[in-house]
Amino acid sequence: MRVLILGGDGYLGWPTAMHFSAKGHEVAVVDNYLRRNLARETDSGALYSTPNLHERAEIWKEHSGENISVHIGDLCDWDFINSLFAEFKPDTIIHYAEQPSAPYSMLSTAAARLTLSNNIGVTGNVVLAMKEHCPDAHLIKLGTMGEYGTPNIDIEEGWLEVEHKGRSQKFLYPRQAGSLYHTTKVMDTDLLWFYVRTWGLRVTDLMQGPVYGIFTDENGHDDRLLPCFAYDEIFGTVINRFVVQAVAGYPLTVYGKGGQTRGYLNLKDTLQCLLLAAENPADSGEMKIYNQLTETFSVNEIADHVQRVGKQHGLDVEIKSIENPRKELEEHYYNPAHTGLLDLGLKPNYLTDEALGEIIQKVIQYKDSIVQGRIFRGVKW
Amino acid sequence: MRVLILGGDGYLGWPTAMHFSAKGHEVAVVDNYLRRNLARETDSGALYSTPNLHERAEIWKEHSGENISVHIGDLCDWDFINSLFAEFKPDTIIHYAEQPSAPYSMLSTAAARLTLSNNIGVTGNVVLAMKEHCPDAHLIKLGTMGEYGTPNIDIEEGWLEVEHKGRSQKFLYPRQAGSLYHTTKVMDTDLLWFYVRTWGLRVTDLMQGPVYGIFTDENGHDDRLLPCFAYDEIFGTVINRFVVQAVAGYPLTVYGKGGQTRGYLNLKDTLQCLLLAAENPADSGEMKIYNQLTETFSVNEIADHVQRVGKQHGLDVEIKSIENPRKELEEHYYNPAHTGLLDLGLKPNYLTDEALGEIIQKVIQYKDSIVQGRIFRGVKW
Repeated sequence: MRVLILGGDGYLGWPTAMHFSAKGHEVAVVDNYLRRNLARETDSGALYSTPNLHERAEIWKEHSGENISVHIGDLCDWDFINSLFAEFKPDTIIHYAEQPSAPYSMLSTAAARLTLSNNIGVTGNVVLAMKEHCPDAHLIKLGTMGEYGTPNIDIEEGWLEVEHKGRSQKFLYPRQAGSLYHTTKVMDTDLLWFYVRTWGLRVTDLMQGPVYGIFTDENGHDDRLLPCFAYDEIFGTVINRFVVQAVAGYPLTVYGKGGQTRGYLNLKDTLQCLLLAAENPADSGEMKIYNQLTETFSVNEIADHVQRVGKQHGLDVEIKSIENPRKELEEHYYNPAHTGLLDLGLKPNYLTDEALGEIIQKVIQYKDSIVQGRIFRGVKW
Repeated sequence: MRVLILGGDGYLGWPTAMHFSAKGHEVAVVDNYLRRNLARETDSGALYSTPNLHERAEIWKEHSGENISVHIGDLCDWDFINSLFAEFKPDTIIHYAEQPSAPYSMLSTAAARLTLSNNIGVTGNVVLAMKEHCPDAHLIKLGTMGEYGTPNIDIEEGWLEVEHKGRSQKFLYPRQAGSLYHTTKVMDTDLLWFYVRTWGLRVTDLMQGPVYGIFTDENGHDDRLLPCFAYDEIFGTVINRFVVQAVAGYPLTVYGKGGQTRGYLNLKDTLQCLLLAAENPADSGEMKIYNQLTETFSVNEIADHVQRVGKQHGLDVEIKSIENPRKELEEHYYNPAHTGLLDLGLKPNYLTDEALGEIIQKVIQYKDSIVQGRIFRGVKW
């Protein structure tokens, strides 16, 4: 495959690039370092610094002998994306290129404007560039389980068959998200579904839960190839962040009652899912949707788990409930279907004590670099 | 009320401004003449030229003694909208300020990019400016019946109660639109509903069908106060366009089988609906949704009606089916609920022979200005 990875510098982007490269595919990555810039502007330093994409591609080549080509530019800029697609002519596009933080999207007027115009602008440009240069390519788009919100009925896999007054219709499963960031992903889904129906594009939309983890098969032996690892409230996802808090001796911050339940998955499983999606492309005019998660936890369950495994590693972990800074249900029904990727062959790496312990060990190695003031930021909505 | 009308130069914007002004409300209109510019760029001249907003406000003042304040600028520009809201501090905002043409949105990459960034950008800025300057104001947003598409079940009024596996949830009625323009309105709805839930904004979202007509209570006696009247395939709506085709001796162009059914309403009824919506504002944290139409017709029914009434006015009207340039169902189920505005007191002006005849008479007056080459443009999707 000729795989173009949009947002190739991110927590998922770089591991995905190495994974597809290791499998023998021709890989190009694109990024404008938006996330790095926003992390710097909000003083959200990562656990360790990561080389830039040109450097990482060099290091990867030393290890694997494989080339990953690097393109730096803004996918909102039509001239840039137009030339890029004309030149690389991908058959598979993996679209991660969005402002990825819910709290950031709720931080200020400027942050909201940036999130909205960047995320919708990139997705729109990707569709239009595909139409122009590679209408038969397969677009794999990173959506989020957060698009669904927390409805009081089962969350089906992308679609819902509705019976109403004796007639029936299959709809996109209705979405109602909990942040502007998540809402831009809902809007992306609407946009993609329109163009799939109208232009016969091939799209797979992955409704992914929060990802945790640090290791993949491709980076185990060289820390310079590890993904960026954010631990602040703005860019860090909850399991990774709780591990850092545990190591730093900072109480695990449970918002409100802690019954907020979501579907999670290991970084290694994200890579499996992406490869499975790429190897089983949507047909022309088809939008495949998978719920990309392997198990569900409440925040309380995660906190308890980190506390217990922390103790095994000599950490004294405190859990502290704080007033919820967000507008969300703290106790709710949550039952998402997620059989599509299992049916394709996904072999889940569950959040075992060992898996959690492995992350804790790695974070302990970087303990001295943790800045406590970065952890809790109190972004309210 | 202090009413700020965004998109005050449009087919609906200017009549709305006069209507609210006539009722004694303080009215300000905003526009950047985007529609006029796009109409010029696509050579989509109107039936007659309309004075600019400053001129119209002057003419309106001569007739009514009332002031309408005029602001020219781009609502995508944060500095502009921020100052505007800070200065005018509306308690009611009517948001028409979007690229309004489905065919235009499907014309080219550049047109798609403009439609997406303009429509989403304005709606996002409006929400953010409200939060900043008038969080208790009531936003009346012009959506479209086209957001729903043509599902095989009844179209309810904005919301759908779903029973699923023994549990139930009320969702936004699932939307799947037929053009990029209509899809931007779906995306607007997602965005507004998110901020209504999260920030407690007051929003009324009007799912309006195609509007026809030319006369309102405020413009009857001075042609300079008539709304812009497009008759080309890009900016003209179907009933108005068919009347012009009938007058010009240009066969009525029915796409395919002509069974495409939609809900329509008279321009006078749009004004009634807007006033009713403004007088019955949504509560904080509530999004009211009305299906704004008074009767449904298939394209064949409209063509037959225009032909019959045309004959009464001495016109020999031909109807011609042409290959459908669009991706849409030509025969389908269509049963939209529309009782909300009737319950508030809407008194429909139906498409009677007299109502149609009145429009035909006016168009005959401008017959010499009709350019036949502007009518059919063959925009395909």
